Amino acid sequence: MAHVVSFRKEEPSGPLLREVSGPVLRLTLNNPPANTLSIALMEALLAALDAAAASKEIKVVVIAAAGKLFSAGHDLKEMTQHRADADRGRAFFERTIRLAAEIMLKIGKLPQAVIAEIDGLATAAGCQLVASCDLAICTDTSTFCTPGVNIGLFCSTPMVALTRAAHRKQAMEMLLTGETIDAGTAKDFGLVNRIVPQQYLRQVVDKYASVIASKSPQALKIGKEAFYRQADMPVAEAYDYAVGVMVENMLASDAEEGIGAFLGKRMPEWNEE
Amino acid sequence: MAHVVSFRKEEPSGPLLREVSGPVLRLTLNNPPANTLSIALMEALLAALDAAAASKEIKVVVIAAAGKLFSAGHDLKEMTQHRADADRGRAFFERTIRLAAEIMLKIGKLPQAVIAEIDGLATAAGCQLVASCDLAICTDTSTFCTPGVNIGLFCSTPMVALTRAAHRKQAMEMLLTGETIDAGTAKDFGLVNRIVPQQYLRQVVDKYASVIASKSPQALKIGKEAFYRQADMPVAEAYDYAVGVMVENMLASDAEEGIGAFLGKRMPEWNEE
Amino acid sequence: MAHVVSFRKEEPSGPLLREVSGPVLRLTLNNPPANTLSIALMEALLAALDAAAASKEIKVVVIAAAGKLFSAGHDLKEMTQHRADADRGRAFFERTIRLAAEIMLKIGKLPQAVIAEIDGLATAAGCQLVASCDLAICTDTSTFCTPGVNIGLFCSTPMVALTRAAHRKQAMEMLLTGETIDAGTAKDFGLVNRIVPQQYLRQVVDKYASVIASKSPQALKIGKEAFYRQADMPVAEAYDYAVGVMVENMLASDAEEGIGAFLGKRMPEWNEE
Repeated sequence: MAHVVSFRKEEPSGPLLREVSGPVLRLTLNNPPANTLSIALMEALLAALDAAAASKEIKVVVIAAAGKLFSAGHDLKEMTQHRADADRGRAFFERTIRLAAEIMLKIGKLPQAVIAEIDGLATAAGCQLVASCDLAICTDTSTFCTPGVNIGLFCSTPMVALTRAAHRKQAMEMLLTGETIDAGTAKDFGLVNRIVPQQYLRQVVDKYASVIASKSPQALKIGKEAFYRQADMPVAEAYDYAVGVMVENMLASDAEEGIGAFLGKRMPEWNEE
Repeated sequence: MAHVVSFRKEEPSGPLLREVSGPVLRLTLNNPPANTLSIALMEALLAALDAAAASKEIKVVVIAAAGKLFSAGHDLKEMTQHRADADRGRAFFERTIRLAAEIMLKIGKLPQAVIAEIDGLATAAGCQLVASCDLAICTDTSTFCTPGVNIGLFCSTPMVALTRAAHRKQAMEMLLTGETIDAGTAKDFGLVNRIVPQQYLRQVVDKYASVIASKSPQALKIGKEAFYRQADMPVAEAYDYAVGVMVENMLASDAEEGIGAFLGKRMPEWNEE
Repeated sequence: MAHVVSFRKEEPSGPLLREVSGPVLRLTLNNPPANTLSIALMEALLAALDAAAASKEIKVVVIAAAGKLFSAGHDLKEMTQHRADADRGRAFFERTIRLAAEIMLKIGKLPQAVIAEIDGLATAAGCQLVASCDLAICTDTSTFCTPGVNIGLFCSTPMVALTRAAHRKQAMEMLLTGETIDAGTAKDFGLVNRIVPQQYLRQVVDKYASVIASKSPQALKIGKEAFYRQADMPVAEAYDYAVGVMVENMLASDAEEGIGAFLGKRMPEWNEE
């Protein structure tokens, strides 16, 4: 790697903590006691992702959480207060749920890899957030559920992410019963990539982040964008599109450097754009 | 739960047995010896599903089978007899296969959750029926296959359901070889949710049914419809759609009641529409 | 089976070995030391697949590899040499990558089943080839990766095949980290169907090939074509299409023979067209 920004910056407390360590931006949900995705937290998260998208230094984003659970999803108290609005809350509900959807779509569009780091319970929109990250690493005591049916509010937006991560019957079981699955089941379902004992969680996430950060940011950006776009296409169209992406990638500077380094048996030096 | 219809009704024997127990409709394939999906059985099944769709009392539908196997799929004798028709059977084959497809699509559109309860072999359209239910629970001695290739008739309609339940290579292995998979493999493939010893099958299915029946029927209906619709959309479109669904769900009476009950730490009382 | 072509034909050495044994065409990647998918090898592979598509005798195609690995993907030396072209290699890169995509799509369109037989490492376009075959059988020491990120060239075309075989987070882990997965993980991901000890690899592949070759070629052709077409459709459209396919299949001679044989408890004799 040519150059790594190595300062460590921590900001004053708020619903979202931001910490930059070298090429890794660590965002920590910090909205006790349940890290509910209040408007304030979601706006901070969206702004942080937008800022990361514009950054040349950040190569990996980690989304973690403070406290004993990852996130309990939307802030039901905040939403309930708006039932007193003239429109019975419609505008506020729409704003809340659309904001969450925007965050999930933004994660997929971010040029950087996004890793969810989970220790504890991730429910509803919290589970949606896990399902929406590129990768997810959790402790062996973490649990996941989409319990909207228990409160008369089916987890319809979480299921968009969930059904794109797991098999249909597996997603349906979580959605229809509202029951909680353990970490092993979540891994079987494809909802998380790796399970680690709690004392190694941070270390393993940091390892993943540093492995990914050592790659060409150019290639990661090109590839990640193509990943989510081609996934929604019929296969022949996906190939047409991906062939074009790959040709441009071959002509980009980092592929020339990377392949040259590989053939020359030396370490590559990525373009820092 | 506000009110549960608790009568138990059993009808005279026929190719499909109907039994209502509280909020659960139990449909039992009863076409010995192989529970083939004859026109008579399929029409009875479709009619039973249509009736369930119109019912306010039914909250969960279980599809089970009498005898030692779940279903051997289409009735090949019945089909073969129609080779003597003026059109060599074309109209009858079309009717048979389209009727099965209608049932499978109807299951997805039913406002109630549908659970397949399997004890024994489920082959061809029988396997399609399992794959098409929202959930599937089977005994540890149950087996599954799509053996059409053995008789020169590729399981092309069963594969529509199978490829939406399992990974492609897994579906392809079943379809190309026609070989039988065991319950554990079916669970790995995503074709069933849960495996139980035979003596507990009914008990576990009843437990799932009663858990789901305790949820808001409003929310289940809204969510299940959205599940299958969004699954076929590109992700951004899926979110646009699901955000709208979720906002309407928030404004529906059961979400107000359910969230109020949750915040007030009491049991919700669902609207019985 | 009515009649089996039982000659054994082996051709002179080249980047692709062709061997016909009864109804099975065995193609062996033979481009030492890494079986890179050079233009020469890919053109030979495409030509061999085209010839197989036109053959009445061939019922199964096996794609295997000579030497200690399956395939290291594209030939980076060959590609790098074309950086000296007037267009900086664009035309050559496009030709290379499109040729690979054509092979992958051709495998899906081939009327015969295609089985990948893997013993050793399959990387990048080599992994894409495995993911693109209908079935894949590997030794327990085989490994798989999409390491493009390591050389600044994201595996964007391999990911088209990979994301259609495995769950998204699993594909993403391979693509973002470039790390190697073992055979067991590949099976969990849905990338391979079966893992066998090395000394039994050929025997198990031959068994699969001969099981599939014993089926009606008519039914296999009809079904395989329908498989990949319906997989890209919304479910209702997929059923409309598949119902039509199934009706035509019922009216084809092999279904009449196969069902007749089944009902008559005798072995079917497939039409050799």
